[in-house]
Amino acid sequence: MQDLSASEIESILDAAASFTASKPSKALSGRVVAFLFSEASTRTRSSFEIAARRLSAEVLGFSIASSSLLKGESLLDTIKNLEAMGVEYFIVRHEVSGVLEPLAPATKASLINAGDGAHEHPTQALLDLYTLKQKKGSLKGLKVVILGDILHSRVARSNIHGLKKFGAKITVCGPQALIPQGIEELGVSVSNDLDKALSGADAVNVLRLQLERQQQNFVTSLKDYYASYGLTPERLAKIPDCLVLHPGPMNRGVEIAGDVADGPQSVILEQVANGVLVRMAVLALIEQWRAHGR
Amino acid sequence: MQDLSASEIESILDAAASFTASKPSKALSGRVVAFLFSEASTRTRSSFEIAARRLSAEVLGFSIASSSLLKGESLLDTIKNLEAMGVEYFIVRHEVSGVLEPLAPATKASLINAGDGAHEHPTQALLDLYTLKQKKGSLKGLKVVILGDILHSRVARSNIHGLKKFGAKITVCGPQALIPQGIEELGVSVSNDLDKALSGADAVNVLRLQLERQQQNFVTSLKDYYASYGLTPERLAKIPDCLVLHPGPMNRGVEIAGDVADGPQSVILEQVANGVLVRMAVLALIEQWRAHGR
Amino acid sequence: MQDLSASEIESILDAAASFTASKPSKALSGRVVAFLFSEASTRTRSSFEIAARRLSAEVLGFSIASSSLLKGESLLDTIKNLEAMGVEYFIVRHEVSGVLEPLAPATKASLINAGDGAHEHPTQALLDLYTLKQKKGSLKGLKVVILGDILHSRVARSNIHGLKKFGAKITVCGPQALIPQGIEELGVSVSNDLDKALSGADAVNVLRLQLERQQQNFVTSLKDYYASYGLTPERLAKIPDCLVLHPGPMNRGVEIAGDVADGPQSVILEQVANGVLVRMAVLALIEQWRAHGR
Repeated sequence: MQDLSASEIESILDAAASFTASKPSKALSGRVVAFLFSEASTRTRSSFEIAARRLSAEVLGFSIASSSLLKGESLLDTIKNLEAMGVEYFIVRHEVSGVLEPLAPATKASLINAGDGAHEHPTQALLDLYTLKQKKGSLKGLKVVILGDILHSRVARSNIHGLKKFGAKITVCGPQALIPQGIEELGVSVSNDLDKALSGADAVNVLRLQLERQQQNFVTSLKDYYASYGLTPERLAKIPDCLVLHPGPMNRGVEIAGDVADGPQSVILEQVANGVLVRMAVLALIEQWRAHGR
Repeated sequence: MQDLSASEIESILDAAASFTASKPSKALSGRVVAFLFSEASTRTRSSFEIAARRLSAEVLGFSIASSSLLKGESLLDTIKNLEAMGVEYFIVRHEVSGVLEPLAPATKASLINAGDGAHEHPTQALLDLYTLKQKKGSLKGLKVVILGDILHSRVARSNIHGLKKFGAKITVCGPQALIPQGIEELGVSVSNDLDKALSGADAVNVLRLQLERQQQNFVTSLKDYYASYGLTPERLAKIPDCLVLHPGPMNRGVEIAGDVADGPQSVILEQVANGVLVRMAVLALIEQWRAHGR
Repeated sequence: MQDLSASEIESILDAAASFTASKPSKALSGRVVAFLFSEASTRTRSSFEIAARRLSAEVLGFSIASSSLLKGESLLDTIKNLEAMGVEYFIVRHEVSGVLEPLAPATKASLINAGDGAHEHPTQALLDLYTLKQKKGSLKGLKVVILGDILHSRVARSNIHGLKKFGAKITVCGPQALIPQGIEELGVSVSNDLDKALSGADAVNVLRLQLERQQQNFVTSLKDYYASYGLTPERLAKIPDCLVLHPGPMNRGVEIAGDVADGPQSVILEQVANGVLVRMAVLALIEQWRAHGR
């Protein structure tokens, strides 16, 4: 998201809007899509797979994490081998930040970042932007709070990069230990007071709190975390026009109340539905670029 | 199986009979089927996948057990998310008895029970009924012995519920430690003497003995178990019209002799073949009900 | 490869040459292909899957290793069950040498060996032969060095069987501890001196050194191994017409220098691309044989 221009992002969001759940497309007919996931994933994996199938791609029926990568082969060798077999698209999730950038020039296949370490998760940010734009009309001047574990969150980083390009005003909010030093340089406000941060917010994007953060002493207890940074019905009642987003999977009763997740201000399941459209758009646009010899 | 009426079961068996292995169908074209399996499975998983593909469904190429469910997300949230992406059918195997019933009203997707704890395994019972009816003409008055570890068996429970509705006479037989207390209330006879139980039987459904039952002291030794409750050629020789069923996977030489499993009275592989037809019927009928806004 | 005649091998190589990456085929339309892999694999698994899909087969979307085989069911029972469901092709990788031979007569399905213990890996040898023939015109009289851990290598065995049938001259080279006793009986020369072995070679097939061989004391250190048996740019510079093959996955800097792997004499990625064609040929020819009631 850091590298895409505002107009490139807009072209993706426009393409996403042109797809509907029921309209099949032949855009990727005959193309082979492989998944390289070194971390577990249900929603991103499924969302990309459904998107690829709706575009008539062939999806390799297994994830590659647990095979060659374990034998010590380099990620690039794995990619080059599968490319030689005819794989044109790789959906990659990897625990190392920035792992894809040096690999891209070495392959003719297209590498799609499905989350790299704490760096970026671009398609998640794209679906967040798509959902916000759909609901609020425009991103310009929108006040968005990103709430929770900013430090470890690629979702936060990709959202910040994307939202800034469209003139949104962003506050990141969470306990100081979970706010990365110098985050202000990305053009965001920082708050450790959720009630203040939420005041006047148009949308709050609630991040998952990895439960192991407690053992790592980032938070004292899940109960304390919920009291200070949980999105509760009480807090939300003061801002009735504020949308609630969450990238999932949710810890109900930790970072978000179950009633909020299922409540009328929540667009969480719409995010999920939009995710398929956005990923169809990403794949279809890359296919167009490939066809034109980009 | 407990909730289905006899006529509902018959309509499934009739639909199964209308399918053949070689006739492809477009009944589920464009539908997306996902597998949520928190326990290992080859035959049920494969059988449902082959059934879904024969109906032209899109089958998501990975099982979801090892991903979001491990991150602590609730099963309902996982289902709601995949539903939002366009998944219409979930084939679910779960170690918790009755896990699906409270979830069903919360989703528009169809949840198909592929085995829940020690509760039910309805499609296994349907394929058993289908096979018995096919071979014996009618289930009415049929004397069926269910043999082995009744206590932990969802297959036994589903078979009892199904067979009773068609007037079959059921004897459950096994060591007392593996017979659940009060099972007679389901309308079955109980025996701890296999030779007596088999006398006059039309069919015996041999249950798998999980090998860990020995460590758990349910059985003294596998050798003793085979002597008392193993289906041997000698025992079967006395009842030449008795069919032999087994839900698999078999422990040859534990609950069943290899020669019996492969012998002329065995319909075990026909059960497996029929399983695909029955599962095609279940999926196709649900699709019809969905189309008519059930 | 031991059992195939030279003309049978030639018919496979000819069929492979008739396929191209872009030409889809309906040869296996409606056929169901399952994978039984008790060892991890990326390239062989993916290559067979892509080959099967290019022939329009239905590929079961999960590998069976981790399910029924773990429950103690015999491999034959697993195969017979899946056959009963309609699976016609099994791609099998297994750690036991020769596991498939006794199973084949017991099933009407076709069992394709994707690597069995230290015994054979026939499709790997076929793609090696295909690549050598493509590059060198003929296999007759070709001087081929097979380098590395011959002892544990099914790739070496299958290559020896295949190459011998076409009159190639083979030298196996590696540390004495990794050369099986009596290998000369297969009609190969043995060398422990890589520089001598490479002199005049037309091709060198570099085997992967499993890193655990060090702990097992087959090699003293990876550094020593590279010094004595690593394919370095210096060694290769003396034989500019010698092709470099490797079945993958590579340990760069152990058995092969990265610069050699990526260098102009390397045909490693062409091997991979050819692997898809050869596997398409194997599947399509079996389908023809099946159709003619072989």
